[in-house]
Amino acid sequence: MATTRNRIIVATNELFRRQGYNGTSLSQISEAADATTGSIYHFFPGGKEALGVAVIDTTGAVYRELFETIAAAPSDPVGAFRSFFAAAAEVLEESDFIDPCPIGTIAREVANTSDQLRQAAERAFNSWIASAERYLLAAGIRPDAAGDLATMFVATVEGTFVLSRTQRSTAPLDAAARHFVAAVNTAPRTAPTTAG
Amino acid sequence: MATTRNRIIVATNELFRRQGYNGTSLSQISEAADATTGSIYHFFPGGKEALGVAVIDTTGAVYRELFETIAAAPSDPVGAFRSFFAAAAEVLEESDFIDPCPIGTIAREVANTSDQLRQAAERAFNSWIASAERYLLAAGIRPDAAGDLATMFVATVEGTFVLSRTQRSTAPLDAAARHFVAAVNTAPRTAPTTAG
Repeated sequence: MATTRNRIIVATNELFRRQGYNGTSLSQISEAADATTGSIYHFFPGGKEALGVAVIDTTGAVYRELFETIAAAPSDPVGAFRSFFAAAAEVLEESDFIDPCPIGTIAREVANTSDQLRQAAERAFNSWIASAERYLLAAGIRPDAAGDLATMFVATVEGTFVLSRTQRSTAPLDAAARHFVAAVNTAPRTAPTTAG
Repeated sequence: MATTRNRIIVATNELFRRQGYNGTSLSQISEAADATTGSIYHFFPGGKEALGVAVIDTTGAVYRELFETIAAAPSDPVGAFRSFFAAAAEVLEESDFIDPCPIGTIAREVANTSDQLRQAAERAFNSWIASAERYLLAAGIRPDAAGDLATMFVATVEGTFVLSRTQRSTAPLDAAARHFVAAVNTAPRTAPTTAG
């Protein structure tokens, strides 16, 4: 039964990435997941909203793990951010510019209409910011700068996804990579860096 | 008759900012604008999609003018960006955190489903990037850095709107202001700056 639940989440995730939350109906989810509406309600008694929370929680965890894998080497923060934006650019091009992240779209659609979904998106974003902040601190960035830079990293990811999808171009992600390389290089550090 | 058309655009703009494009129906627009559906189709024969293009074009122009007003003094780019993010924070708090910009939400919702709306959003974003780039060049930033910084400015605006609305906090906009002050201060310049 766990596989049916998972199939529903994966199919919903892709529909949300392609056409947003409000543009996706339960019958489309049923068809894409090859699951009856009854089965969807069995796993998600709260219907589309509960399924939205599950998609956000799942995607939030996957992306945090992805970032933590890329950022496994605190000795090279510049390389980590460069790799992250390069990987995002590849995903965008390979997927015909559907949204790499369903959370940002849902968050903007429902921030004022569903507090349950808004809170799920807040949990995901805050977990990413905390993860990036831990990484920047480990890389030797001063705490005040690490906090701002971590928030700006998540904001930049969400903002460049909007621009890249709209322009059907990875150029904004390339600009973000260069921008973060410069920002990390000029950020104040807790101790002098050693030349490498 | 021009006022009816304008009333329809203003009402639609606010509905899109509050609940997105797909979450807004023509009957809601009709009620909010105090205009019949027939009247909406009179001004926008293409229906909701054509109205969406008009909202994007109008908002795109208004925000470009707003930025150009704030950035009227090329001698103080740091102050200009600080003012812009402070003004955005004020708008967010006063409006109960509805989206200051309907374009980003629409763009993410329909980038893969309506090429007409995607292109309208692309026009708006590109006009903002071009405007910010002209300003940064006038402020003495080197062309390669001005292009990236202008793209990052628009990406950061869109990204911080997602975070601020989701967290119901203006903290991400405050972080963006500090981040841009640092980015502008450290950006390479075409000529040495004079101390002031």
